Amino acid sequence: MDFKVTPWEVEGIIDYQKLIEEFGTTTIDEGMLRRIEKDFGELHLFLRRKIFFSHRDFDIILNRIEKNQKYALYTGRGPSGHTHLGHIMPWIFTKYLQDKTKANLYFQMTDDEKFLHKRDLTLEKTHTFAYENALDVIALGFDPEKTFIFSDIDYAKTLYNIAIKVAKRVTFSTAKAVFGFENSTNIGMIFYPSIQAAPCFLPSILEKEKMPVLIPAAIDQDPYWRITRDVAEKIGYHKPTAIHCILLPSLQGASGKMSASDPDSAIFTVDTEEDVKRKIKNAFTGGKMSLKEQREYGGNPEICSVFQYLHYLFEVDDLKIEERKKGCLNGNVMCGECKIYLTEKILTFLKEHQKRREKARDILENFLLKD
Amino acid sequence: MDFKVTPWEVEGIIDYQKLIEEFGTTTIDEGMLRRIEKDFGELHLFLRRKIFFSHRDFDIILNRIEKNQKYALYTGRGPSGHTHLGHIMPWIFTKYLQDKTKANLYFQMTDDEKFLHKRDLTLEKTHTFAYENALDVIALGFDPEKTFIFSDIDYAKTLYNIAIKVAKRVTFSTAKAVFGFENSTNIGMIFYPSIQAAPCFLPSILEKEKMPVLIPAAIDQDPYWRITRDVAEKIGYHKPTAIHCILLPSLQGASGKMSASDPDSAIFTVDTEEDVKRKIKNAFTGGKMSLKEQREYGGNPEICSVFQYLHYLFEVDDLKIEERKKGCLNGNVMCGECKIYLTEKILTFLKEHQKRREKARDILENFLLKD
Repeated sequence: MDFKVTPWEVEGIIDYQKLIEEFGTTTIDEGMLRRIEKDFGELHLFLRRKIFFSHRDFDIILNRIEKNQKYALYTGRGPSGHTHLGHIMPWIFTKYLQDKTKANLYFQMTDDEKFLHKRDLTLEKTHTFAYENALDVIALGFDPEKTFIFSDIDYAKTLYNIAIKVAKRVTFSTAKAVFGFENSTNIGMIFYPSIQAAPCFLPSILEKEKMPVLIPAAIDQDPYWRITRDVAEKIGYHKPTAIHCILLPSLQGASGKMSASDPDSAIFTVDTEEDVKRKIKNAFTGGKMSLKEQREYGGNPEICSVFQYLHYLFEVDDLKIEERKKGCLNGNVMCGECKIYLTEKILTFLKEHQKRREKARDILENFLLKD
Repeated sequence: MDFKVTPWEVEGIIDYQKLIEEFGTTTIDEGMLRRIEKDFGELHLFLRRKIFFSHRDFDIILNRIEKNQKYALYTGRGPSGHTHLGHIMPWIFTKYLQDKTKANLYFQMTDDEKFLHKRDLTLEKTHTFAYENALDVIALGFDPEKTFIFSDIDYAKTLYNIAIKVAKRVTFSTAKAVFGFENSTNIGMIFYPSIQAAPCFLPSILEKEKMPVLIPAAIDQDPYWRITRDVAEKIGYHKPTAIHCILLPSLQGASGKMSASDPDSAIFTVDTEEDVKRKIKNAFTGGKMSLKEQREYGGNPEICSVFQYLHYLFEVDDLKIEERKKGCLNGNVMCGECKIYLTEKILTFLKEHQKRREKARDILENFLLKD
């Protein structure tokens, strides 16, 4: 395979169809889409556009939803820096699920993992980012009565007690095969998958009722659920189920995911108007070398990060995105126009988000689980 | 080497001199004994008889004691079952150190480790034993103002936060080389050394003063301190120092340490009078096949578990133990006599200990650290 996807690393241009085969997940097919549409009254943009494209046992959750039975949502964030739009994508979808089904959401901030993984990050830093990132979660409007956010290091007692039950059932061989651990991997990272597994069982413990969990997350996180699913029933819980989205590509080009270590590869929620304008101005597009050429031959929206941002997040109107695509292919719409359009969309979103994000500071405590 | 010593396993007859070389520790020599005698006013039985025989940087602790500077004691117990006399040996010595130097003692109950290590032990079981074993610690008379006992799972938040700082600096290679981990080892056990390392730094955190720690423990625990010493200064703490004792041999013969899985190999603190009588009656000795032979050729105290129990723990009078040894070698003292003598000594100890142990239930809470 000419690409690589792990929870910590993405290399090459991802072939998501191949990833489904490699990971052993299931495509969200037309039948499932029709069922979701029926259950929820509408299909979210991310489903219509196959941004959420893969799952593990999502039908089990649909069964429960249809029978008015409880389930819990679980997602999270690795707080190695500020939140960018790629992080928010699965959260927006998680909110859609919470809105439609009134499920409790458990939101994990993996400050321990990011500290263990990144040589130069201190625990103090990742811990600070955990709560900075939590502001972005809250700003999206999750139900404060049904949303529980925790930092791994502030909730370590509860999590460690669950994690060791998982860890006892996972050998180094298995962890190595699933995550590609090496002899040089530190022993904290080797144990860490059991900490990320723990919230799969947390709702059953806190709500005192054996409960399946649905994890909406980018597909790079799937290796965790594979390990967790192998262990779940052996320790008395339901297997976690998952619904996977693609990774929002870098503004610098279609390969790889965005990265906090390359600030111009992504739009962060704390970016200023100037940041956004600069980043979109410099973004990689599918345009030709000259306007003349582009008018003659058209652009290539497939590889264009500006088009992808519109397609994935900011042009919610299906007709309009189709028109824009055609316009680009025909040579009628130039890159500059798309950039201005996207910049306006992002600035409108950020202006509102940043306001809500600041207000979130006052209510942060209401959302937190701590030992 | 024809013996093997790890924190979880002892095989063969241990050559402690070779272990000092293999582990890279230092013999407690005559010079150090004289210094301890001068500092403490007397030499503990365990030092006179070389039961504590090895150390790492104990001279650093003696320097501090001589300058009236603080240090902290740290020892622990793996609660896989009830406490036996082999466990108590280092605790008695720890109490001697606390009495002489007024140091704070941090006492770790590794209920997580025993759960992770032993297939058939539940967490509920090891957790229960943690507090049962704590009663034995308290019964020995540690200063309630200066003694802090914690179960790993009840103190997991504090410990995990320290442990990940250690874990980040320990690769799988290192852990494998030091502990003999294999591909089939579970990922909880692989991480666990960082949990056992954490209390080395706990006193510095709780007492808000960078503080060296002295660990009195059986030498099989030394691999933990080796790893911890490599990391300590890199994360801003003093290297832990250690003082090592031998393992009390099994009543079934001189090889191996006593084991909770073979109840007749050891005297447990909860044993009844009948248990003790039976176990000592059946204990392995250095006696000959017949009384006649023994009178003629004498016995062999070196391999005799009854003699060792007297030598290590119950005959504190140096002249009397010498006489008994000679009497055995000369064929004047028979095994039956030693067994009766030892049985009486043990019963006297247990009667008093069990009384204190029950009283300890009422004050247990005063000793505990919890998150």
